[in-house]
Amino acid sequence: MTGQVIAIDWGSSSLRGYLLDAAGAIVERRESPGGILRVRGGDFAAALQGEVGDWLSAHPGALVIMSGMIGSRQGWREVPYVACPADLGEIAAGLERVDWGEGEAWIVPGMLDEARADQPDVMRGEETQVLGALSALSKGSGLVCLPGTHSKWVRVEGGAIQGFATYMTGEVYDLLQGHSILSRLMTKGSVSADRWFLEGVELGQEGGLLNRLFSARSRALTGDLPESAVRSYLSGLLIGDELASAVPDQPSEVCLLGAVALTELYEAALGRLGHTTRLLDSDAVAAGLFALTKQLAASGRLE
Amino acid sequence: MTGQVIAIDWGSSSLRGYLLDAAGAIVERRESPGGILRVRGGDFAAALQGEVGDWLSAHPGALVIMSGMIGSRQGWREVPYVACPADLGEIAAGLERVDWGEGEAWIVPGMLDEARADQPDVMRGEETQVLGALSALSKGSGLVCLPGTHSKWVRVEGGAIQGFATYMTGEVYDLLQGHSILSRLMTKGSVSADRWFLEGVELGQEGGLLNRLFSARSRALTGDLPESAVRSYLSGLLIGDELASAVPDQPSEVCLLGAVALTELYEAALGRLGHTTRLLDSDAVAAGLFALTKQLAASGRLE
Repeated sequence: MTGQVIAIDWGSSSLRGYLLDAAGAIVERRESPGGILRVRGGDFAAALQGEVGDWLSAHPGALVIMSGMIGSRQGWREVPYVACPADLGEIAAGLERVDWGEGEAWIVPGMLDEARADQPDVMRGEETQVLGALSALSKGSGLVCLPGTHSKWVRVEGGAIQGFATYMTGEVYDLLQGHSILSRLMTKGSVSADRWFLEGVELGQEGGLLNRLFSARSRALTGDLPESAVRSYLSGLLIGDELASAVPDQPSEVCLLGAVALTELYEAALGRLGHTTRLLDSDAVAAGLFALTKQLAASGRLE
Repeated sequence: MTGQVIAIDWGSSSLRGYLLDAAGAIVERRESPGGILRVRGGDFAAALQGEVGDWLSAHPGALVIMSGMIGSRQGWREVPYVACPADLGEIAAGLERVDWGEGEAWIVPGMLDEARADQPDVMRGEETQVLGALSALSKGSGLVCLPGTHSKWVRVEGGAIQGFATYMTGEVYDLLQGHSILSRLMTKGSVSADRWFLEGVELGQEGGLLNRLFSARSRALTGDLPESAVRSYLSGLLIGDELASAVPDQPSEVCLLGAVALTELYEAALGRLGHTTRLLDSDAVAAGLFALTKQLAASGRLE
């Protein structure tokens, strides 16, 4: 395998594509809102042509590799989860090929953590981002937070993903902002890591979230919280509740991987609670996908 | 004051009306979806006529007394909050009259608890329900839970409301059920105090709610949780999180006041966590409103 690689992070609501050279360097990148939920009639082959058809034409021998919800039941092909713990090689062994009448195209498996019987957890896509950031972790170990609609907290040791946990922080924020009694208070302002956000983080990590949420309303009613600060305060309450359970009590290092707007909030929140942070490359998924193609080539499974 | 009383619990989204005789006994009761948010153009006088015009005609000298969001900024008249702690007499002193060209009509003040500077709390309507249930509390003291969209937990000592806390449990449940990634799993079943509900309660009270919520999805995905049980399980997780913060750790008695469908769930949840419960009259608001009219009569403020 010496040619280009077309690496795709294909989620529910968006897609990120990378054209990589034979050494894994990013030649070109693009983003699109064409997540798998937008693909009509299950024609993922046509959707892929639509997104990166120019790359496919220019590099007919390129290997296509895709991670994310594209490997779910709602995606192109359901690829079984790989159980924790697993390292790069074990995840690569779970790669599955899709036959679409074109060149080689492979889908990365998601991961399943069943260590807690009452809290099994699943992810698709984040494991590949973490694989791409392994070299930035000290001794291939660390606690990685990927904030988002569903934040993932991934524990890595010796280069293997040991386990992980999902938090619905972003989704609950969106629901409260869009559909709750708090919505009407949230017409102004945006979320930033200001004093109200940090106060929310401190209060949020004390627990009693369902009570704390109401304080966004009661403090606004009593004039104690400016309306323009409600978004930041509410975001802080939710992230504080997440951190109380996701991060050990003693000062810890958390590696952050994600979009800048979110990692900045988590960086500020973690700092407030006495933890240190390390920022990982937000394009790590490209490196993860490339590393998987190398494993694939070495395994002899490529035609 | 010897005539009939028309007692109204007038909330945001519904109204409960009681026709009481001169001794406070309920002669007739009715419920309607005519909450204050449905009143067009602020014409509350017309709305009141529409709801209980027949009672007003039949008993022209009847005293009208109203509690709930009718006394809020969005209601008929904004009646200032009474601060905690306050007993029946102090709350009655905050009653305000509305002039509407008919007989006497009064609105009950809401209450404000500012004991926690970072968590002021407000309520309108629940204080009157608690006043109506005082005689059922041992020595006029107890912890009263009024479950609902916004659950209220009211601490009563020696007949006075000492403080209270609001939990957005019901609203967050509704949001998750109606608008979240969990919605598509919740097409079947209803909430009942079954084993899944109770398991949710136990897990929910351990904390980490934003993580636990995701288990409703991951357990359904892995086949561990039947789809018909997702509603009960999710309800249990939320109520468990609420109880962990609302009820003392040691076994306690909680008095429940509300609709049967909800009080049954809380009864089961509290029992599972080792607490005892006492069920209060769900029509307590009528007794509370009547007790307030007696205070009003004794104060000489009636014309």
